[in-house]
Amino acid sequence: MKKSIGANTIVYPTPVLIVGTYDAAGKPNVMAVAWGGICCSDPPCVAIALRKATYTYGNIILQKAFTVSVPSEKHARAADYFGIASGKNANKFDVSGLTPVKSALVNAPCIEEFPLVLECKLIHQVKIGLHTQFIGEILDIKAEEGVLDEKGMPDIEKVRPFFYDPGAYAYYRIGEFLGEAFSIGKDLKKKA
Amino acid sequence: MKKSIGANTIVYPTPVLIVGTYDAAGKPNVMAVAWGGICCSDPPCVAIALRKATYTYGNIILQKAFTVSVPSEKHARAADYFGIASGKNANKFDVSGLTPVKSALVNAPCIEEFPLVLECKLIHQVKIGLHTQFIGEILDIKAEEGVLDEKGMPDIEKVRPFFYDPGAYAYYRIGEFLGEAFSIGKDLKKKA
Repeated sequence: MKKSIGANTIVYPTPVLIVGTYDAAGKPNVMAVAWGGICCSDPPCVAIALRKATYTYGNIILQKAFTVSVPSEKHARAADYFGIASGKNANKFDVSGLTPVKSALVNAPCIEEFPLVLECKLIHQVKIGLHTQFIGEILDIKAEEGVLDEKGMPDIEKVRPFFYDPGAYAYYRIGEFLGEAFSIGKDLKKKA
Repeated sequence: MKKSIGANTIVYPTPVLIVGTYDAAGKPNVMAVAWGGICCSDPPCVAIALRKATYTYGNIILQKAFTVSVPSEKHARAADYFGIASGKNANKFDVSGLTPVKSALVNAPCIEEFPLVLECKLIHQVKIGLHTQFIGEILDIKAEEGVLDEKGMPDIEKVRPFFYDPGAYAYYRIGEFLGEAFSIGKDLKKKA
């Protein structure tokens, strides 16, 4: 039996993505975003949704570029701080002790210490309501060598990302391997 | 030291969302989507990205409505099947043995057995590239009574959602509680 819980913003999981931008003076800023994710395979694109009131919103409009970094669970405290402070009145890199590095391909900063970074060029902007969605084409992904597997691809168990539960305002670790995608449902397909 | 891995579609985690629609004849269909998530808080909205070749694409254009269900890990096999078969040549409900139920608020089917369902009215359509993004306003969320906590909100540890690793084509379970959001970074904010 299902019960109505009202119009709400609950799906599981939502990511914790760190968006890096420069302001007009070249000051690097980062903010945490849970409303985001991959939105196209070709060209590879990522969408992030921001309130107009954020410092990052103006920076993206200005620079037409941003980075999206995936933090490891050891960075949860810094990532949380990036979501509760504003770049309008703080230099979040100075406060967190993390290191901004200019992206090789776009005019936006990456976080040196984070394992995975997507370098993005703004290609669409969609005003929805309180949030505006920015869609960036992913020009490249850069990964720490230590999180790569033997094929040179990121290994999620080395990246150790974490995620956000928007119903309970909580972060969770990733768990164990459950099964192979496009594979564990094959017997049902054969049955059809 | 970071290494380029090329333009790719890797962020962690990506969800496994099941999109429910009716075709022109009223046949219910479901497909699995990993490119999606919440994209606006007010009004509450969810975005899902689909290839034009999918059966669901035409159904959403026709009905201007869809549901988004969150499967539990016990439904991983069915959810995987929903991602590898097409509604063009299969009735995925019949094959999986799951039960379609018409959404109370929109012309789209829900999955009776899945713990959480978002009832959505199409409000935006954004052609990106191979994928087109459909943005739906979430009119209501319905949750199985058994997954609710004492406040009547969904409890992620009862829902037991799983997620998709787009780098390794693998599903993972959720892990343990890591910390409270908008809280564990507060000491850094105070330091600033």
